[in-house]
Amino acid sequence: MDSTSFWTSLITAFVFFVVLMALFACFSSRPGNKVIYYPNRLLKGMDPFDGGNYASRNLFAWIGEAFSSSERDIIAMSGVDTAVYFVFLSTVLGILVLSAIVLLPVLLPVAATEKATNTSNSTSYGTYRDLDKLSMGNVAETSSRLWAFLMATYWVSIVAYYLLWKAYKHVSALRAAALMSPEVIAEQFAVLVRDIPPTPEGQTMKEQVDTYFKSIYPDTFYRSMIVTNNKEVNKIYEELELYKKKFVRAETIFAASKTTGKPEGTRPTNKTGLLGLIGKKVDSIEYYSEKIRELTPKLEAEQKATLRDKQQAAALVFFISRLTAASAAQSLHATMLDTWNAMDAPEPRQVIWTNLTIKFFNRQIRKYIIYIIVALTFFFSMIPISFVSLFMTLENLKKYLPFLKPILKIAAIRTVLEAYLPQIALIVFLALLPKWLLFLSKLEGIPSRSHIERAASGKYFYFIVLNVFIGVTVGGTLFTTLRIIEKNPNSLITTLAASLPGNATFFLTYVALKFFVGYGLELSRIVPLIIFHLKRKYLCKTEAEVKEAWYPGDLGYATRVPGDMLIVTITLCYSVIAPLIIPFGVVYFGFGWLILRNQALKVYVPSYESYGRMWPRMHLRLLAALVLYQLTMFAYFGLKKFYYAPFLFPLIIMTLIFGYVCHKKFYCSFRYPALEVALQELKETPHMERIFRTYVPPSLCSEKVEDDQFEDALSHVSRAGSFA
Amino acid sequence: MDSTSFWTSLITAFVFFVVLMALFACFSSRPGNKVIYYPNRLLKGMDPFDGGNYASRNLFAWIGEAFSSSERDIIAMSGVDTAVYFVFLSTVLGILVLSAIVLLPVLLPVAATEKATNTSNSTSYGTYRDLDKLSMGNVAETSSRLWAFLMATYWVSIVAYYLLWKAYKHVSALRAAALMSPEVIAEQFAVLVRDIPPTPEGQTMKEQVDTYFKSIYPDTFYRSMIVTNNKEVNKIYEELELYKKKFVRAETIFAASKTTGKPEGTRPTNKTGLLGLIGKKVDSIEYYSEKIRELTPKLEAEQKATLRDKQQAAALVFFISRLTAASAAQSLHATMLDTWNAMDAPEPRQVIWTNLTIKFFNRQIRKYIIYIIVALTFFFSMIPISFVSLFMTLENLKKYLPFLKPILKIAAIRTVLEAYLPQIALIVFLALLPKWLLFLSKLEGIPSRSHIERAASGKYFYFIVLNVFIGVTVGGTLFTTLRIIEKNPNSLITTLAASLPGNATFFLTYVALKFFVGYGLELSRIVPLIIFHLKRKYLCKTEAEVKEAWYPGDLGYATRVPGDMLIVTITLCYSVIAPLIIPFGVVYFGFGWLILRNQALKVYVPSYESYGRMWPRMHLRLLAALVLYQLTMFAYFGLKKFYYAPFLFPLIIMTLIFGYVCHKKFYCSFRYPALEVALQELKETPHMERIFRTYVPPSLCSEKVEDDQFEDALSHVSRAGSFA
Repeated sequence: MDSTSFWTSLITAFVFFVVLMALFACFSSRPGNKVIYYPNRLLKGMDPFDGGNYASRNLFAWIGEAFSSSERDIIAMSGVDTAVYFVFLSTVLGILVLSAIVLLPVLLPVAATEKATNTSNSTSYGTYRDLDKLSMGNVAETSSRLWAFLMATYWVSIVAYYLLWKAYKHVSALRAAALMSPEVIAEQFAVLVRDIPPTPEGQTMKEQVDTYFKSIYPDTFYRSMIVTNNKEVNKIYEELELYKKKFVRAETIFAASKTTGKPEGTRPTNKTGLLGLIGKKVDSIEYYSEKIRELTPKLEAEQKATLRDKQQAAALVFFISRLTAASAAQSLHATMLDTWNAMDAPEPRQVIWTNLTIKFFNRQIRKYIIYIIVALTFFFSMIPISFVSLFMTLENLKKYLPFLKPILKIAAIRTVLEAYLPQIALIVFLALLPKWLLFLSKLEGIPSRSHIERAASGKYFYFIVLNVFIGVTVGGTLFTTLRIIEKNPNSLITTLAASLPGNATFFLTYVALKFFVGYGLELSRIVPLIIFHLKRKYLCKTEAEVKEAWYPGDLGYATRVPGDMLIVTITLCYSVIAPLIIPFGVVYFGFGWLILRNQALKVYVPSYESYGRMWPRMHLRLLAALVLYQLTMFAYFGLKKFYYAPFLFPLIIMTLIFGYVCHKKFYCSFRYPALEVALQELKETPHMERIFRTYVPPSLCSEKVEDDQFEDALSHVSRAGSFA
Repeated sequence: MDSTSFWTSLITAFVFFVVLMALFACFSSRPGNKVIYYPNRLLKGMDPFDGGNYASRNLFAWIGEAFSSSERDIIAMSGVDTAVYFVFLSTVLGILVLSAIVLLPVLLPVAATEKATNTSNSTSYGTYRDLDKLSMGNVAETSSRLWAFLMATYWVSIVAYYLLWKAYKHVSALRAAALMSPEVIAEQFAVLVRDIPPTPEGQTMKEQVDTYFKSIYPDTFYRSMIVTNNKEVNKIYEELELYKKKFVRAETIFAASKTTGKPEGTRPTNKTGLLGLIGKKVDSIEYYSEKIRELTPKLEAEQKATLRDKQQAAALVFFISRLTAASAAQSLHATMLDTWNAMDAPEPRQVIWTNLTIKFFNRQIRKYIIYIIVALTFFFSMIPISFVSLFMTLENLKKYLPFLKPILKIAAIRTVLEAYLPQIALIVFLALLPKWLLFLSKLEGIPSRSHIERAASGKYFYFIVLNVFIGVTVGGTLFTTLRIIEKNPNSLITTLAASLPGNATFFLTYVALKFFVGYGLELSRIVPLIIFHLKRKYLCKTEAEVKEAWYPGDLGYATRVPGDMLIVTITLCYSVIAPLIIPFGVVYFGFGWLILRNQALKVYVPSYESYGRMWPRMHLRLLAALVLYQLTMFAYFGLKKFYYAPFLFPLIIMTLIFGYVCHKKFYCSFRYPALEVALQELKETPHMERIFRTYVPPSLCSEKVEDDQFEDALSHVSRAGSFA
């Protein structure tokens, strides 16, 4: 990739971005699109524009609103998790800005004024280019100018330690403050108990659990909810819900057909066979209401049967005090860890019911098997990734796909291919992986959705760094990498360091593409807008269906965070070698902060709240990126035959110690609820029955099941002091 | 070492053992020696011989008594820790006996009937010997007879898994039963809190701690005891105690001097200067009573000052319910782990007060520094160990110390040197190390003595296995080993395997020496007997001094367990290669079980009780020995060019999985007190004041300090419900 294609891609991306901004300005002010651009505010029952009217709005008002919003606003609108994500963005931004302030004015002149005698290390093709003149590749071997770069390596690391320490402290405080909230948070009163031992003769699971916890917590135990096997009841419930939906739809269609011209209307019909295409033609309203009448008693019977006979070896236990719940969640109850295993309950909306009943050692085995599968996925995905590196040079393309030669001779196609193909191939590939990783993580037996997303995000991060960054840099193909490792395991880092300068422009383009196109699409919401309008026009009949069409979903940490992490890793690793990448990183995280702030305030609706549990993993991965950066620099200084390269060794040790100290000091309160926090006074006496009800799965919610039968999985245990 | 010297050493050791037994029979029946042979029974106020008289006792009565004693007797006489030690001994014995039953009748004929064509692998000198005929070395390479040995390797491992699993279960139950005891155990009501944050302005440490814990545990908090800096007060206290002792001694001497011939007696005198050798001569009784009068008010003043002004950032917190204490000991109190760090309190008698106030990260740093120091100790101790391997062959002795040649030609000296020198050198060296390791472990900042002993014992185990077993076998010198590792790290195990058969007789002798001489000395207690009689005759004047002279001490797990572990490792590693070693191992652990049972019941007085916390470490190390055995066998089969050697690979994986499962399932209840266990009913309402008093260090115990001043480190907090 030469200088021209670099500028081409930058400029095209910028134009694309400007177009997207224009579209945003144009569409977002139309009242009909407010469900796309302000769904979060609408769902919270707020006016989209804070009292302004649509037409008179300043085009850039959203920027001002984003800047003026405080952390408290973010927490109120989008939860602690989002606030923590912004801490992450601003921490990285801080590290990059502080690095840039020192590195750009110092390193660029140092590199540019060097009269390089050899250019062997400077580029991948050995040709001389402007960009390379500003990088460390331009500095001669053993030059004393390298001291400046060594100092710069230290500066970046120290800035990172300082800001990361502050950030961890801040996030800890955020989490503690949120958990100390005087509001009643349902999951703070519950504990998830798994691996309940087999029921003794003559007792139900429910009785066993109640007896056990009443004896340990006689004053604060409220009641328990045994996890049941809901497969059957869910099936009936979903069927019933589907018919209800179809019934409403049929009625809406019928009502709409009653035009002035035809006041009696047309009763909709459907076929009863496969997919409504074959079978007998029936009147829809009658058919569906008949089905609903049929299924309702069946559901009730199944609900009763489920609660009575399908109790499984897991339970949610409720306490009237959050202090007791916090203490119970982290205490060892039985002498064996694989019986009566307690942990803090997940939020009601993110419980993965089917995973709760998986036994202790089964979970362990699943975990390791999943690790092996993930490793295999990574291993074999090296093959598609190697195609990316094929596309990276047209020379390779010509060599491997000779029939493309005539096309590649056309200058325009050539430029476009050179500028975009590699990045687009990479981005498309990376978009396909997360679903697979989420699926695998769910199989591990993790009890809550947020935890599954964290686990998948971790796997995705390691995949991205290993495959994309190291893979693309070193040469991309599985076989090259393996051959290097086989010859000498230590040489991987050296090879990585040697290939870095040559790939600088590739990654510059990659980052630019990410922020111009990625964030442009993000803010303008062109894709959801189009889908929504199409759906509304051709598919949606009822109000509920329209709402479903515009419901925005959440920020999607599982893929967003690893994506950002890749940019951090790339920017850090190149920060000293080619300091020009830092402004690109700054723009990426600046744009990210600004645009996502708008999205968090107005668009996305969080689908769960984990009170910042994502942070320790983000922190750990930032440190992993830092270590990779330091190792790379160490190797690169070695390549430059700089004898003081070992001065970087203490830095690596320091990072490890820093990580250890942070983990020891802060991590525990992300893992366990601290008693000091749970101790805070509540605004009101918790309405325990309401807390309990939030956990009942919708398929088991029924007015008929309220009666207190002792053998039921939900039934209320008879106790002295009853709490209303 | 040839066959003659092997038999010489066996027979001499046996003769020595018989002599010691005769001495034991002779001395133990004398009433004057009962404080040496029955101190534990005496201290518990029991009759030494259960109602029999001394003279008529059967010589072997102690064997019957040891066999007929139940586990409950052991717990009653010597505590759970000792019972767990016997579980360890009987588990190892079980593994060896079950192995022997299969291995001896199968492998010995298989090896003996092989007509070995080459003897290159059979001995270290290449000469043919009887013992080697019965070992795996005699089997030809690639012989299909090796299948029998492969199966034997599996058999030993499976027997080990089965018995270890049973043992872990049993020990867990023992621990739980002991902790469920309806007796009041002081440490079950207390929690050790460290890393208390700095006191806010206008509050004492005591107030801060009381406020904090009263708010979290309003119903069950009893009171707290702030750890104080007792350096000064301890100094005065010890001085005072010394003078009190000397005063009693002087009075006893004076009373003894009042013989019938001289009824007025001689008043003892002493000199006031250095060591009582120089200075003014004074009347002892007057001088010491004067000193006591002087120091008593000084001690009281210092006690008050200490309690008021020397409060430090650690405390013991007492609860009126052991359930709360158990829960508090494992709960996270503050959001940062380095503040308000709580753990279960150690027994009063094993608290290391000076370690309690070491801060969190200070403890972490100390731990790693100690690890480095230990590693260095091990590294440099390879040099003395290499002398052992020098002595191992007289050939080497002659080569390195040529002036010894004439002496070595005398047959008797030669035999003795060959038979004993190496083993004695080894035993002496190993006896010097534990003190150093205990000292280092104490510096780590561990709060209880039993924990320190466990930590030291772990270090000692790795030292013994690394240095003695691997060192002696491979060749002993640091430099050989390093050179091997440098050349090819994988070859260490191969070299080890290759050297094993040649060293079989050395280790046979070592084990025999250990059980004949070691256990002979143990049972006969010749050394303590002589020391006691000498002391009583020449030094002891008062009753207290006599008691001190015979007070037996405890079993000494810190050195005993690693010593046994070495024997286990040796026996396991040779079990298949030279099955003849198994009977030696059986005798070692059989003798050990029998003789130590006698000693536990009658002699040793446990100095602490950790309720079997030693077990998880014993278990882990047994598994480490098992893995070493399996790796060695794998390498040895490789050397024998047996193509099915990889069949051993699943075995190693199995051991790792077995260890992982055991750790996950059982370990937690050794680390934390399980709530289920703490829940059990007590026989009586605990006398909280008495529990509290057991923790007051003797130097701070004084009737005068009872008054409740709020600012004192000990003072009682004013609370609604007072507990008597």
